[in-house]
Amino acid sequence: MTDFQARIAAAYDADAFRRESHRLMDTLSDYLARATRAEGPVLPWAAPAVNVDRFAAAFPEAPTGDFADLITRVLSGSNHLHHPRYVGHQVTAPVPLAALCDAVSSLLNNGMAVYEMGPVSTAMERNVLRWMAARLGLPETTDGVLTSGGSLGNLTALLAARQAKAGYDAWNGGAHAGPPLTVLTAQTTHYSLARATRVMGFGEGGVTPVPVDEHFRLRPEALDAALESATRAGRKPIAVVANAGSTATGAFDPLEPVADFCERHDLWFHVDGAHGASAVLSPAHRHLVRGIDRADSVVWDAHKGLLMPALVTAVLFRDGARSFESFSQEASYIFHGDAERPWSDVALRTLECTKEMMALKVYACLAVLGTRLFSDAVTESYEQAHRFAQRLSAASDFEVAVPPECNILCFRHTPAHVPAEQWDTLQTKLRERLVTRGDFYLVQTKLPRGVYLRVTLINPLTTDADLDALMDALRAAALR
Amino acid sequence: MTDFQARIAAAYDADAFRRESHRLMDTLSDYLARATRAEGPVLPWAAPAVNVDRFAAAFPEAPTGDFADLITRVLSGSNHLHHPRYVGHQVTAPVPLAALCDAVSSLLNNGMAVYEMGPVSTAMERNVLRWMAARLGLPETTDGVLTSGGSLGNLTALLAARQAKAGYDAWNGGAHAGPPLTVLTAQTTHYSLARATRVMGFGEGGVTPVPVDEHFRLRPEALDAALESATRAGRKPIAVVANAGSTATGAFDPLEPVADFCERHDLWFHVDGAHGASAVLSPAHRHLVRGIDRADSVVWDAHKGLLMPALVTAVLFRDGARSFESFSQEASYIFHGDAERPWSDVALRTLECTKEMMALKVYACLAVLGTRLFSDAVTESYEQAHRFAQRLSAASDFEVAVPPECNILCFRHTPAHVPAEQWDTLQTKLRERLVTRGDFYLVQTKLPRGVYLRVTLINPLTTDADLDALMDALRAAALR
Repeated sequence: MTDFQARIAAAYDADAFRRESHRLMDTLSDYLARATRAEGPVLPWAAPAVNVDRFAAAFPEAPTGDFADLITRVLSGSNHLHHPRYVGHQVTAPVPLAALCDAVSSLLNNGMAVYEMGPVSTAMERNVLRWMAARLGLPETTDGVLTSGGSLGNLTALLAARQAKAGYDAWNGGAHAGPPLTVLTAQTTHYSLARATRVMGFGEGGVTPVPVDEHFRLRPEALDAALESATRAGRKPIAVVANAGSTATGAFDPLEPVADFCERHDLWFHVDGAHGASAVLSPAHRHLVRGIDRADSVVWDAHKGLLMPALVTAVLFRDGARSFESFSQEASYIFHGDAERPWSDVALRTLECTKEMMALKVYACLAVLGTRLFSDAVTESYEQAHRFAQRLSAASDFEVAVPPECNILCFRHTPAHVPAEQWDTLQTKLRERLVTRGDFYLVQTKLPRGVYLRVTLINPLTTDADLDALMDALRAAALR
Repeated sequence: MTDFQARIAAAYDADAFRRESHRLMDTLSDYLARATRAEGPVLPWAAPAVNVDRFAAAFPEAPTGDFADLITRVLSGSNHLHHPRYVGHQVTAPVPLAALCDAVSSLLNNGMAVYEMGPVSTAMERNVLRWMAARLGLPETTDGVLTSGGSLGNLTALLAARQAKAGYDAWNGGAHAGPPLTVLTAQTTHYSLARATRVMGFGEGGVTPVPVDEHFRLRPEALDAALESATRAGRKPIAVVANAGSTATGAFDPLEPVADFCERHDLWFHVDGAHGASAVLSPAHRHLVRGIDRADSVVWDAHKGLLMPALVTAVLFRDGARSFESFSQEASYIFHGDAERPWSDVALRTLECTKEMMALKVYACLAVLGTRLFSDAVTESYEQAHRFAQRLSAASDFEVAVPPECNILCFRHTPAHVPAEQWDTLQTKLRERLVTRGDFYLVQTKLPRGVYLRVTLINPLTTDADLDALMDALRAAALR
């Protein structure tokens, strides 16, 4: 054995791994216990430059570091998403079993691209996608992929839409082979959509905004005018993108009239359900996405509504064959002999070549924890938002931007002692105080009527009492 | 406590997590021991349909499943990348400590987008990127991002190149605001590059192929003609992409003359070093990438040369400010009040919004295991390929496609008892036999002279004796 082989044998030694892994799991279990018990701040605020110094990249040449010590420092410096007072972005407190699945995924590294490189993960991905498609009411012809996040998911879906509806071969011919294209969507759509169209070279006009109603929902009766204005501007509309729900306010666009409109005008119907497609799991709330079964493509993030750690995004195509049209060239060294373009070589249909075993965590958690936990989590989080909105509305010093449709809620503190023209500044100041003190983690958003605080009740450990405490904390902070 | 809260408390219970995690870590340690000892087949071959049945999606409503049993089945059905006879794709046998880091990442779910959502991961990402930039010899102005794979990395770099060199604002104006664009690159470039340009709407002509020499390296003296032919075809060239090294054969394009050419013609110089940028870590082999310090952008996959699990890809820009030009719009609810576009809100510069804590594994493994393990792994794998090539060349019944430059090697078995016109079929048959029996995992590729077997010596547990056994196994299989 050479010196190098000895060092490699040590780095890959199963007994050393056993020791280190057990030590780590105790550390993580202790961490989880503290966070779920709401001990300490939510976010131990420190400025970027401070953390850059704390975690400097002065790496030793020889193995001298201490893993346990490093991880302890990582844990204490992080944003604690399992703290019940984390009510911030649409990023969940992952169910802990999923984190174990990711350790399995990263040890096995069976990241697919071709079937041989991930036989189990490929099979699980297919079946998880089928399960999701069935929940959405999509037909048996549905197929899709798991990909690295909603932004990439929307891009993947729109690439297929471009190929199906441009009227020319944009993949091989390029954008100049036909007129500039555009996609109709609510003004309030997530920035990833504008990003995807700009990536594809559609430019600013690649998104044709459709006005929204007072609940921030796309107005279907405005679609005709949007189509006309796009066409007048020399654009060929290829798709309508509906939100379920939108990121800023959680608004669900009415899907059925959008589906009708797409049918009438031969447009691709894409639903960005990154956040809200999970509503289908809730008998009480699935009416929000009525019509999603008519979509040509749907994006659904399991790391939002399904309590998974990032990233695991499903892109579903009602006509599975369309999933090959997002990307359509071959690489001889990787896809040898597959004239029939099999579903099992997933890189034919994803932007990633290698991936992680994304399906494993979804599959394992559904199989082990059961589906009810996940469907109830959707129902409960939506209803918690309704209850919180009621309490806010009942208070004279709070105002809800719009009644919540899901677990996203925008509101603001409007105490009598602060003049209305200072409310925008107040919300920003309140958020900054609560977040940097670590009392709560919440965010803010700018709506037409001004700056609002924004919570996403995506952490199932958050109780109504925590939300009452949030109101009190905001009141106290406003007085200081 | 409601019934739902009780079920959530159970799913998030720290003691249950402790028990399950310790049990899993024993299972993973046993697995690692078996795989590294070369027990059992490399790949337990089963057809896609078989695994789809084995891992069906019949999920129970209540928590009845058995996690340990499921994971045992996952482990036994997977491709065992830690088996010393895994010599296949450019996907590594991850150093086990990295898998533990991914469990931490997935429990914390501090996936960035904005600094607050991942204060430690943001700091680590910045410092890991600085460390990589320094290794490459890039200047202090360098900045970048970690992203989900080399394909996405190349797209990210080319989006910045488009914005810098198109001569018009392709981001906002769209492709039709100017002439169609093109990128010059070796014929042998990875398919992700053609994919990225087609995603951007450049079409087939978006890649202008540059001829390669007999070692599959871009011929710099052919660049002028390629530039002329692209221009004659009405295309505006924006960049040259050089490979370090190429996927099929591991060829390293000569970077210095490409840098000179780009300087002369005001073109963006991008190096796809997904596989081979790691050569900079090896004093013996860093000459392969001489000139990489002159690149405008570099892609470097830590999950290839740095023994990391997928995915963790660095995209580095010599002018860090350029990294904001890949994607340049804002989202008020997320990037509030950042008129100065801070580096610490990473989603401004990645296609992903939320990410994983990608930097953690790279940072922790370098800090704990030391840098020498990783630089030696590069050196040793490259030299092992050289030794294997020598043994193959010395044997009358094997032929090396081209002397290897790194740890990728293409060769074929050419036994006298098989006529030369059947050699292509033979390689395919041999590979299929070895892979489906689980003796070895290797791949194949089609080169101009025919079908070749292809190995990537990326698993540091593979010994020269394993490679001798591969030759014997091929000989035996050819006789059957």
